[in-house]
Amino acid sequence: MPSLSDLGQLPKRLVLGRPVRSDKAGESLLPKRLALPIFASDPLSSVAYATQEILIVLTLAGTAFLFLAPWLAVAVVLLLVVVVLSYRQVVHAYPSGGGDYEVAAKNHGRFASLVVASALLTDYVMTVAVSVASGTDNIISAFPQLAEHRVLIAVGLVAFLAGANLRGLRESGKGFAVPTYLFVAGILVMVVTGFVRYFFTDASLVAESAGYSITPEPEYGDLAGVALLFFVLRAFASGCTALTGVEAIANGVPAFRPPKSKNAATTLALMGGIAAAMFAGVTALALFANVKYAEFPCDLEGFADCETQPQRTVIAQVASAVFGGDSSVGFFYIQATTALVLILAANTAFNGFPLLGSVLAQDRYMPKQLHTRGDKLVYSNGILLLAGFAVVMIVAFEADSTRLIQLYIVGVFTSFTIGQWGMVRHWNREMKLVEGAERARMRRSQVINALGGSITTIVLVIIVLTKFTRGAWIVLVAMPFIYLLMRQINRHYTHVADQLVPSGDSRTLPAKVHAVVLVNKVHKPTLRALAFARATRPDQLTALTVNVDEADTRALQADWERYDIPVALTVLESPYREITRPVVDFVKDIRRDSPRELVVVFVPQYVVGHWWENVLHNQSALRLRTRLQFQPGVMITTVPWQLEGSRDREEVLLRQPEGPAPGDLRRGFAEDPGER
Amino acid sequence: MPSLSDLGQLPKRLVLGRPVRSDKAGESLLPKRLALPIFASDPLSSVAYATQEILIVLTLAGTAFLFLAPWLAVAVVLLLVVVVLSYRQVVHAYPSGGGDYEVAAKNHGRFASLVVASALLTDYVMTVAVSVASGTDNIISAFPQLAEHRVLIAVGLVAFLAGANLRGLRESGKGFAVPTYLFVAGILVMVVTGFVRYFFTDASLVAESAGYSITPEPEYGDLAGVALLFFVLRAFASGCTALTGVEAIANGVPAFRPPKSKNAATTLALMGGIAAAMFAGVTALALFANVKYAEFPCDLEGFADCETQPQRTVIAQVASAVFGGDSSVGFFYIQATTALVLILAANTAFNGFPLLGSVLAQDRYMPKQLHTRGDKLVYSNGILLLAGFAVVMIVAFEADSTRLIQLYIVGVFTSFTIGQWGMVRHWNREMKLVEGAERARMRRSQVINALGGSITTIVLVIIVLTKFTRGAWIVLVAMPFIYLLMRQINRHYTHVADQLVPSGDSRTLPAKVHAVVLVNKVHKPTLRALAFARATRPDQLTALTVNVDEADTRALQADWERYDIPVALTVLESPYREITRPVVDFVKDIRRDSPRELVVVFVPQYVVGHWWENVLHNQSALRLRTRLQFQPGVMITTVPWQLEGSRDREEVLLRQPEGPAPGDLRRGFAEDPGER
Repeated sequence: MPSLSDLGQLPKRLVLGRPVRSDKAGESLLPKRLALPIFASDPLSSVAYATQEILIVLTLAGTAFLFLAPWLAVAVVLLLVVVVLSYRQVVHAYPSGGGDYEVAAKNHGRFASLVVASALLTDYVMTVAVSVASGTDNIISAFPQLAEHRVLIAVGLVAFLAGANLRGLRESGKGFAVPTYLFVAGILVMVVTGFVRYFFTDASLVAESAGYSITPEPEYGDLAGVALLFFVLRAFASGCTALTGVEAIANGVPAFRPPKSKNAATTLALMGGIAAAMFAGVTALALFANVKYAEFPCDLEGFADCETQPQRTVIAQVASAVFGGDSSVGFFYIQATTALVLILAANTAFNGFPLLGSVLAQDRYMPKQLHTRGDKLVYSNGILLLAGFAVVMIVAFEADSTRLIQLYIVGVFTSFTIGQWGMVRHWNREMKLVEGAERARMRRSQVINALGGSITTIVLVIIVLTKFTRGAWIVLVAMPFIYLLMRQINRHYTHVADQLVPSGDSRTLPAKVHAVVLVNKVHKPTLRALAFARATRPDQLTALTVNVDEADTRALQADWERYDIPVALTVLESPYREITRPVVDFVKDIRRDSPRELVVVFVPQYVVGHWWENVLHNQSALRLRTRLQFQPGVMITTVPWQLEGSRDREEVLLRQPEGPAPGDLRRGFAEDPGER
Repeated sequence: MPSLSDLGQLPKRLVLGRPVRSDKAGESLLPKRLALPIFASDPLSSVAYATQEILIVLTLAGTAFLFLAPWLAVAVVLLLVVVVLSYRQVVHAYPSGGGDYEVAAKNHGRFASLVVASALLTDYVMTVAVSVASGTDNIISAFPQLAEHRVLIAVGLVAFLAGANLRGLRESGKGFAVPTYLFVAGILVMVVTGFVRYFFTDASLVAESAGYSITPEPEYGDLAGVALLFFVLRAFASGCTALTGVEAIANGVPAFRPPKSKNAATTLALMGGIAAAMFAGVTALALFANVKYAEFPCDLEGFADCETQPQRTVIAQVASAVFGGDSSVGFFYIQATTALVLILAANTAFNGFPLLGSVLAQDRYMPKQLHTRGDKLVYSNGILLLAGFAVVMIVAFEADSTRLIQLYIVGVFTSFTIGQWGMVRHWNREMKLVEGAERARMRRSQVINALGGSITTIVLVIIVLTKFTRGAWIVLVAMPFIYLLMRQINRHYTHVADQLVPSGDSRTLPAKVHAVVLVNKVHKPTLRALAFARATRPDQLTALTVNVDEADTRALQADWERYDIPVALTVLESPYREITRPVVDFVKDIRRDSPRELVVVFVPQYVVGHWWENVLHNQSALRLRTRLQFQPGVMITTVPWQLEGSRDREEVLLRQPEGPAPGDLRRGFAEDPGER
């Protein structure tokens, strides 16, 4: 009969596939047609909320300023073009996937690179929170009766993603590519259909909220001068959410097929073009169809059920208007693919985080296991931390995507800005080394990056100014915390490394070896431990027991004689019925009497067939080992005794592949998705 | 500057006191004046709900059958007397504190003793749930505005108790004795005052619910014949909650000062007398004052705010009537001491559980650490399990003490019944050995136990019949589960013990020793591991590294030559970038080539200054050790390297006394409470 663990193994194997040899990694890289949907689900999905965020701000002042929407959309598209052009330079100059962090580290130094890292870490949390919240909005737009379960749905989705990634979900499969294409195709069909209907047919394009009117909030009544400028900038800053996720491709260069940089740059351009077209198209349709969207539903005059009904998302209202109502196939198609692509976008954070963690670990700012992949535990903790913080944000902001977005773009634009200015420095340095055409080409690149840097700097200032009180302060508080944590980790590693530099005395051999075998009963594990200890031919050998229970100790002594064991048994008294302390004291005494003697403590240990059986064994051995390791000149030798059933458990453990880990794809370690 | 752990240490030390040497245990035993309040808080606190439970059942049929209440109270008191007399026999015959479990094991055998154990384990959960729920009721009776937070308060109290016991709360102090005396004194003063007012003054004794009337539930309209009998028996069964906790003293005999049994028996009699007086007195006052108490408040006609206001507990209503209203000092005194003694009663379960666990562990029905006290982890898990199940019950039954009580007394009376019949057998056996006066005395004891056994059997049948559908079935389902779990644990230990009986081959010495030192970098821990490994003079010595990162491996090889290390370095390739598997395979190959060779794997390990620093180190060593221990003929030797700061941590750990543990007092291990 297969054990429970065997059965648990099956689905994992199905999901994980086989681990990949690094010398075969070349075969398993991504063609552009797969890299685009996998890395671009995050930036493309921004289309689902960017238009809406612009409208929300503009409608604070009633409908008077809605005429600004197209101009703001154009500004956002131009910004997108500049940022994409800038990142194409990054992709060529830093093909290792370090992204803005690497650019900052190589061109600005440690402070800037850690600021970028802190920004990106908060960014991953917000990517999960915002994408899932927006995905939930779009699910609710299709099924409004779910509105009251908003937070529950969002938290459930995060839990699902965390669970899938803990189990080893790979993002290289076609399963991740298809939804993005379906989404892009759906939006483009919707845009074309909408334009045709609007310009070439008599059928009107009317959103369900077209008839609502909005009274301006008192403080936005008659905006003018600086207040108006601030208002417009705030709307623009909201629209900048369309740019979130653009850096993903720059971080994923190692996963591309050669020529890696060229393919990544092409994919980046493609992504930029598609995102711009979708964003512009959706914004135009929203304006054609007269979509109204307010921060609070009851600000919409004419929305009768505003207390109980949710507002549908802008994309849902557009889809409904274009495809003929909220029960049309087209409407459900758009809602389903939008929700799906948003969930995929959230999933990219679960892959981006370990990638960044690996780079940070190499520089000793994060636990080193993130780099060596020595243990999945750290990855798992990373996934749980990411999911945990995302859930906290979702619950704190009641899964309200608009409120969450205020926190999102600070990190994104911090990273953009530092990265672009780093590139300007990069070209300065590089240009000194070359002449002629090459130099001119670099100068062009530098101009692009300087333009990108200038614009993103301005946008960052706008964002901080307009969003600070609306939640951005939380990110601006969190970032220094993360920064300090990374500094502390680095300081720890450096401090440890300093302690460990070899010196003369570290090679002195101990004069004598004193073996101490811990004995509890006369049974096979004890006899094996004694035999093994004798095999190491120590200078002195002590069999040691602690008298916790008089009757047990007497029985042990009787057995000891009966089996005629050729080692004297030393009995330690334990007036407080402890086991650990008498043994530690005994060992300390040996070391005190002869400090050059090496003490080897042999601890027999059961290896059980099921992990839960450890509850029934081995607890005091564990405690003893913990205490003994504080003594210099003491080694602790575990003598395992394999109980029946342990061989089955070993096989189960061996069948678990150690790789892959989340983020492997982006590091260029991946299976060939074509093989799946 | 004291570290965080140091500061954490301080309150623990204050609570824990100093550990106690078992050879000084005699000094730290309890005089009767402390044993009574500590062990009897559970049975005495039953007074807080027993009267109420009788009234709830009787008022189902309106007020017609309230005249039965005094007779039922008399029956309960008689039952209490019989049970106390029976337990006095147990205390003398089995002074080791094993209680009904030991009686059943020695006189009936394994099945009966495990049934008792299962009953007692469910009983501990219900003691916590019922006592805390009733305590909450009495807090709410004083502050009705807290009614809506009932479940939260109850869960909070359980969490508080669990936390205090996890931190090592001792129950031997005067702090535990005083509230019980205050409670007893308060109730007795209330009874005397009430009687004086009722019989000797003109002042009337009128409960706030005296004026309410109750229409019988349809099915209780005109009870007669069997239905009436069943109804009366059900009310009687409800009153039997007054007996819960009586067995506590029988389980606590080892904690008494000598002559232990005599003192315990005296304390038991005292407890019985006080409990009977309090129960009878409160019941009489409730009837004098015309207290009405219904299962659902709105069944009380005249209770205007029944939808929003809670019913006050019977004891609260009596206190209010006797002491002049619900803002009198007397009222608050009674409520405060009642709530406090109920919380202490819940706490006794946290001490009783490890005691039973220790006895069960000795017989191999529970993890053996519960007996040897090798590790507090198991105790902690026990506390968490107990608290967890209690919280589940509280939440499932919305902290409704009446509904919870239905589940309570099944376990109690199962244990009573089996224990008493076991005593009958015990005397049969003992009587064969003696003659004359001694024999006659034993016969008297046997008659008492037979009477106790008969009556508790009848009561158990009544309880099961009348309470089965009201929740008792849950206990009757849980008990077989616990029974089977204990059987499985026992089977596991027996099976392991069978495997471990020494045989000829277990003493064969390995032919050769092959030491393998794992190397990552050339630093002090590595050099120490190499030096120690060389000190053990193995037949063969291999320094082993895994090539996970080409650059790192080349750097290691360069250092290896630079430091001129006199051992060859073997580099294992790791195409999948794993560390564990190549090492395990290497070791397996050695064993395959020469099966009589002993392989000793030396793993350098950092000992960090703070537990959280382990996140930054040692993870792959841990994983490797786990895998290697499945290989027979392999020992894993940890070579600790003490980082700076580890000495401070050792001191912190050493300052933590290993004892005491919950339940120690009842096992006769205790400080002298007089010293505190």
